[in-house]
Amino acid sequence: MNYCSHCAHPVQLEIPEGDNRLRYCCRACGAVHYQNPKMVLGTLPVWQDQVLLCKRAIEPRYGLWTLPAGFMENGETIAQGALRETREEAGAEVRLHGLFSVLDVEVANQVHLYYRAELMKLDFCPGVESLEVRLFRQQEIPWEQLAFRSVSLTLQAYFADRERGQWGLHTGSVHAELVRYTSTEPR
Amino acid sequence: MNYCSHCAHPVQLEIPEGDNRLRYCCRACGAVHYQNPKMVLGTLPVWQDQVLLCKRAIEPRYGLWTLPAGFMENGETIAQGALRETREEAGAEVRLHGLFSVLDVEVANQVHLYYRAELMKLDFCPGVESLEVRLFRQQEIPWEQLAFRSVSLTLQAYFADRERGQWGLHTGSVHAELVRYTSTEPR
Repeated sequence: MNYCSHCAHPVQLEIPEGDNRLRYCCRACGAVHYQNPKMVLGTLPVWQDQVLLCKRAIEPRYGLWTLPAGFMENGETIAQGALRETREEAGAEVRLHGLFSVLDVEVANQVHLYYRAELMKLDFCPGVESLEVRLFRQQEIPWEQLAFRSVSLTLQAYFADRERGQWGLHTGSVHAELVRYTSTEPR
Repeated sequence: MNYCSHCAHPVQLEIPEGDNRLRYCCRACGAVHYQNPKMVLGTLPVWQDQVLLCKRAIEPRYGLWTLPAGFMENGETIAQGALRETREEAGAEVRLHGLFSVLDVEVANQVHLYYRAELMKLDFCPGVESLEVRLFRQQEIPWEQLAFRSVSLTLQAYFADRERGQWGLHTGSVHAELVRYTSTEPR
């Protein structure tokens, strides 16, 4: 950020009065331009014992496999965003189950949220941001060729919960151990 | 947004090639300025049978009661942000329990996330954005003077779960019925 988006005056990194962080500030019009993390919304679409992955047709991580996901847009809910991204990237209609993982990606100023989802039909097809879309059994997952750590952690948690026979909510940083939160703890 | 923050040229609302939404675009340097929802992080601090609320010293909703919460900052995790806001607004140190509510506020382009939390000591005190901080028993909650719907929904869900003896994750839009997600559903 070089210029004020309100008045086009050059901005400066300063700590505004009453604040404690550096912000892009405009000395001409007084605007403070806050920058905040973004949400990435996605699904883990399941068909019987298989999960759907997309091969990325865009950078970063061109050619690697990912769950359908993308940036949340203004005016939508997290569920709507997750459904939209699944449609756009995989051409897939899904039914959402619970929110499954909420993962901090601090280095990128992002939070990734994935829903477990059920594939409604097998007529999926790659959107413009995917080279290929296909179903994988657990033993077929290309672990070494996954695009993002939030994807591998979400898939690991999914297979572990499936084995366990109980779904949890998985939270934490992609740089650390995840916390599995079950709602069954006594009060 | 009137001007490009990269090059100070006036921006225009256009649909970029390969996109399907209006964005602020710069025809001079080619920058596309995406705008995305922001996250608000907070806690529901509990001491025995009481919950902690803050009376707002700032607009919007000056003088109304809220849970300690605020905008997530770059470089932090959602847990760190929730702890920071609790410290800043209520002067309170808490221990986080599970993520408790994830609430869409579409009209404001926000998602609000609250953790259940346990107050460590009773030395809380209002920060600069609070007029007063105090503990409330369930029957004392000033329901008509709560600042935000995400706060009233989170408190309602908390008391309902406490009654039930089991904690869930509560998701949905503040404009609709919430979904209570328990991790105990069979696979």
